Amino acid sequence: MNKPQSNKIALVIEYDGSNYKGWQAQKYDVPSVQENLEKALSVVADHPVSVVCAGRTDSGVHACAQVVHFETHVKRHERAWTLGVNTYLPKDISVVAARHVDDDFHARFSALSRRYRYVIYSSPLRPALLSSGVTWTYKPLDVCSMQEAAKVFVGRHDFSSFRAIGCQAHTPVRTVMNFNVQQLGQYIVLDVRANAFLHHMIRNFAGVLMSIGAGEKPVSWASDVLAAKDRTKGGITAPPTGLYFVDAQYPESFELPVRPLGPHFLPFVEEPSYALPS
Amino acid sequence: MNKPQSNKIALVIEYDGSNYKGWQAQKYDVPSVQENLEKALSVVADHPVSVVCAGRTDSGVHACAQVVHFETHVKRHERAWTLGVNTYLPKDISVVAARHVDDDFHARFSALSRRYRYVIYSSPLRPALLSSGVTWTYKPLDVCSMQEAAKVFVGRHDFSSFRAIGCQAHTPVRTVMNFNVQQLGQYIVLDVRANAFLHHMIRNFAGVLMSIGAGEKPVSWASDVLAAKDRTKGGITAPPTGLYFVDAQYPESFELPVRPLGPHFLPFVEEPSYALPS
Repeated sequence: MNKPQSNKIALVIEYDGSNYKGWQAQKYDVPSVQENLEKALSVVADHPVSVVCAGRTDSGVHACAQVVHFETHVKRHERAWTLGVNTYLPKDISVVAARHVDDDFHARFSALSRRYRYVIYSSPLRPALLSSGVTWTYKPLDVCSMQEAAKVFVGRHDFSSFRAIGCQAHTPVRTVMNFNVQQLGQYIVLDVRANAFLHHMIRNFAGVLMSIGAGEKPVSWASDVLAAKDRTKGGITAPPTGLYFVDAQYPESFELPVRPLGPHFLPFVEEPSYALPS
Repeated sequence: MNKPQSNKIALVIEYDGSNYKGWQAQKYDVPSVQENLEKALSVVADHPVSVVCAGRTDSGVHACAQVVHFETHVKRHERAWTLGVNTYLPKDISVVAARHVDDDFHARFSALSRRYRYVIYSSPLRPALLSSGVTWTYKPLDVCSMQEAAKVFVGRHDFSSFRAIGCQAHTPVRTVMNFNVQQLGQYIVLDVRANAFLHHMIRNFAGVLMSIGAGEKPVSWASDVLAAKDRTKGGITAPPTGLYFVDAQYPESFELPVRPLGPHFLPFVEEPSYALPS
């Protein structure tokens, strides 16, 4: 058997999205994470490589565990797809894990759910550190009322009120499996898991919850906005700076690498404190 | 009394040093924190403003509580020196506190001590998040041996072995008041307070302690290097990325603003766990 065997590899990718116009490679000459990653992989593979990701992120959005897959006929040690590829990536993108996977694995279609964290820093004056890595507000926020309000988003709902005007999804119905709001260190962190997300959905959740946390709107406003099924009844779209793609869940049979939940600057929290009573 | 009264103001400054060639304004056209700050203050004051800082930081080094003072004859509300100045600063520099101070206050000469933290991230693959805000090593580090080794630096010593070749200080003798090494979240943090520091002193401490933590050198090597009083007997100069100016201590009578110890992404630690037995 001298014929090279087809080969599918999954990677876990971390990136600081501040300098990129989002995940997706663009037609025009704008920087994207995908294009940088494909170029680096193509050097190591010595042939053109295309990647598919679990969840495309917008301009300025970060990831600590974006999952991608690609196919290659070349045989390399897994270290070539981590250490090797990292030498060809800019410092704000890195491969943090690699694994050979079954041919039927698909980073997008095999994913059972996606998980994001939205990191808010509340202080009277704007921070200079992590200025593109958190969402700053000068308003004090009440975490308890935000958590109370977030409960109504859990479940299968029509999320039209939280969907960007240009969103191209076939349906506004999504299933939110968990929605937790908690103080982690000096940050307030929204932690959301859903089967999939509409365009700007989490940033629109954040806009509503920050208004409630600041006391500008009552807790009940969250259910009013949800029930309206109308984007114009919602809050602002909060900035992308605080948003991190933190996990994609796949059937265990694919045996994807398991890593601590990021971003790495957040204190570690036991998972049981994450799950919401549904 | 129509004549404008002389007026001294102290500011606490946070900055991400990644994009600056250090604190100090340079003769040539290179970006410095000082130059940006002086320009912004000059706009608000409507006259040229010069600042003096507690401790000049090198290229790529950050601060969460750099202290500066300046003089102005104009009367402004303290908010003008915080919110107002921040609107003229780039997003990686911010004023986080301002206070009118007595005329005999001097940010450099009144300081009793300076305190730095050095943030190390140990993981097999390099991080993309905070890539300019931590020092990454692929080597696992033993915190206990690093803490044990650091004890010998506490006290009044000739630190010639930890002094950059070009250091212009009159004497290599400094007094290290505290030196703590601990795991904070996913980072190993060196936390050092001294009356003053020699050029590269903390990064040279970090170089020695990281070699000891990695098991490449025994704990006793720290005292050997210290006793040698010879830079060539020391370790590498660790990168600036993980270094943060976190505090300057002044006599209480100056009533400078008190703030939580940064950088804001590190978990809060009770101060009693900071002090080393001397």
